[in-house]
Amino acid sequence: MQAGQGRAEEIPDILNEEEALELAVELAKRGPGGQANPQVGCVILQPSRHDFGGQSAVVGVGWHRGAGTDHAEVAAIKSAQPVSLVGATAVVTLQPCNATGSTGPCAQALVDAGIRRVVYAVSDPAAQAAQSDDYLRKHGVQVVGPLTADDGSVPPRAYELVRRWLLAQQRRRPYVIVKSSASLDGRIAAPDGSSRWITGARARAFAHFVRGNMGAIIVGTETVLIDDPLLSARRPDGSEGPFQPLRVAMGMRDVPAAAKIRTGDHFVHARTRDPRSALAQLWELGVSCVLVEGGGQVISAFLAAGLVDEIHAYIAPMLLGADGVPSVGPTGITTLAQAPRFSVRDVKPLDPDVLLVLDTTTLEK
Amino acid sequence: MQAGQGRAEEIPDILNEEEALELAVELAKRGPGGQANPQVGCVILQPSRHDFGGQSAVVGVGWHRGAGTDHAEVAAIKSAQPVSLVGATAVVTLQPCNATGSTGPCAQALVDAGIRRVVYAVSDPAAQAAQSDDYLRKHGVQVVGPLTADDGSVPPRAYELVRRWLLAQQRRRPYVIVKSSASLDGRIAAPDGSSRWITGARARAFAHFVRGNMGAIIVGTETVLIDDPLLSARRPDGSEGPFQPLRVAMGMRDVPAAAKIRTGDHFVHARTRDPRSALAQLWELGVSCVLVEGGGQVISAFLAAGLVDEIHAYIAPMLLGADGVPSVGPTGITTLAQAPRFSVRDVKPLDPDVLLVLDTTTLEK
Repeated sequence: MQAGQGRAEEIPDILNEEEALELAVELAKRGPGGQANPQVGCVILQPSRHDFGGQSAVVGVGWHRGAGTDHAEVAAIKSAQPVSLVGATAVVTLQPCNATGSTGPCAQALVDAGIRRVVYAVSDPAAQAAQSDDYLRKHGVQVVGPLTADDGSVPPRAYELVRRWLLAQQRRRPYVIVKSSASLDGRIAAPDGSSRWITGARARAFAHFVRGNMGAIIVGTETVLIDDPLLSARRPDGSEGPFQPLRVAMGMRDVPAAAKIRTGDHFVHARTRDPRSALAQLWELGVSCVLVEGGGQVISAFLAAGLVDEIHAYIAPMLLGADGVPSVGPTGITTLAQAPRFSVRDVKPLDPDVLLVLDTTTLEK
Repeated sequence: MQAGQGRAEEIPDILNEEEALELAVELAKRGPGGQANPQVGCVILQPSRHDFGGQSAVVGVGWHRGAGTDHAEVAAIKSAQPVSLVGATAVVTLQPCNATGSTGPCAQALVDAGIRRVVYAVSDPAAQAAQSDDYLRKHGVQVVGPLTADDGSVPPRAYELVRRWLLAQQRRRPYVIVKSSASLDGRIAAPDGSSRWITGARARAFAHFVRGNMGAIIVGTETVLIDDPLLSARRPDGSEGPFQPLRVAMGMRDVPAAAKIRTGDHFVHARTRDPRSALAQLWELGVSCVLVEGGGQVISAFLAAGLVDEIHAYIAPMLLGADGVPSVGPTGITTLAQAPRFSVRDVKPLDPDVLLVLDTTTLEK
């Protein structure tokens, strides 16, 4: 492999296909999340005359680095130069595309490179529509994928990588995550407005990690005026992470020229109170996943519109009492049967806090 | 062993001392919790001329069944009759007593039975004060215990069994657990007062299991008048569990003769608004652990008095909105720095809900 692929020193020399898929998932995460293109990773294996006990030499690795750059497969092919890839196997997290967008179709690139076997984990509806598998097979490539058991399960880590992106494609709008950081009794600030910090350092670091995987962060214009948040994705040392989401102020109020949210060139003002309209605007800007960070009014608007796919509820083990600021504003719910119920996808201890990750599937009672 | 010891069929034939302690812990749990006496279990092993690979025959088992009944050690000795216990080993979860209460001292009973070795997990300050170990050693018994490593750790399950009881002894008042079942946004009822059910069947079953280990359940008189709870510890099929806590209405209002809380002979009216006074009254009645189930006013009173040792926060993944009934009433907190912070001892998924078990230790920020 050529140098300059970044952290290439961490790439193992030989792998079997299952291990190669795990590596491809990790490589995919080096690219930006929440954008028009999904995170994809690719590992190219060259079978050898030597017996590696079912393993093959890793001769290329690649991942997608963002809109307008090479797809993972092409990046992996380029990384292998000048090694010949004739007869090699490409292991990819997502079905190779067969469309000419800002870059050429990956299916053709794989054929041209001499790849003779493609293993992919998750199918991409667009690639299926474009008959990517057929193209590869017609050109003598053995295709294995999607890696779906009969019961519909797919390798969970590869699926998790594109789950939100796939749902966004289906819905033709960004996938929406609502974040709330509240006390045990559901308060996001004390009566005097003080809220720094309700959650501890670990929870805040994780929230910044999540921001770094979003295409955009939304806050209401009122939150901009009151809290003046920077909304960047930062490391614990305060430095900016490798990928920065769009920073979106949603609402009708003007955003002052000096507002921190305007720092850099990531600022968007979605001058609307309608969540659907804000999402349409972001979708046009190539955003496939947004994090709604507040305030309560904006969160209530997304909930009322049925436009919340996931909730990140950071719970701090503290009590603020009934005079504190509530995490969710009035909802119009008058009786218990009207309340939306979700399912807990994950519970993540972030000492001293706890993060509940919720799917907003309405459950049977 | 004699028959009639209850579920004796589950007792293994041979065990080593470590396994015997695990069994003793399980046996202890068959007795009532939250009372004046702790839950204690005892297993008696009879070394044999046969080599069991470090294991010995189990010749007696016992556990404490509640105030006025035999202590675990005496119950175990009796269960062994007519087998001779000369030269046998007693494995006990708690240091044997050396005091004559409503029953005779266990240290003497062990000596009289011919026991030659006593292994106990956790030391009991009262037994230590009464020089129980010295008594046993003076009578030729080898004493191993407490099973404390140099760093102060003890076998965690044996310690957990008596942790609350030991704290109650230290403080000369019942250990206090506050229970709350709330939505994600900290609401315990919808605006119209409907609250059945915010949590699901698993959470409710676990809450009844917890009730069955309490000496008393406290609710405010207002809750009695509004909700008319039965407050018994019930199995999922609705039948009453083996142990029933005292059912305590706390407050100045009269409790109607027809109130469900008066069912059976477990009712107590603590005619006070002062948590300290209510706890003193229950301590006199032999209660070492109470569960405070609400309402918000009673919970606030216990919090304000600094009389909460543990919080069971059942969180239902649903939203009720700011017009719902808050889980905690006004606290007088005006700014974040005044808010009490706790530590998360345990996170228990009770699908679809999550239980956070909190220690009310104030943490450094």
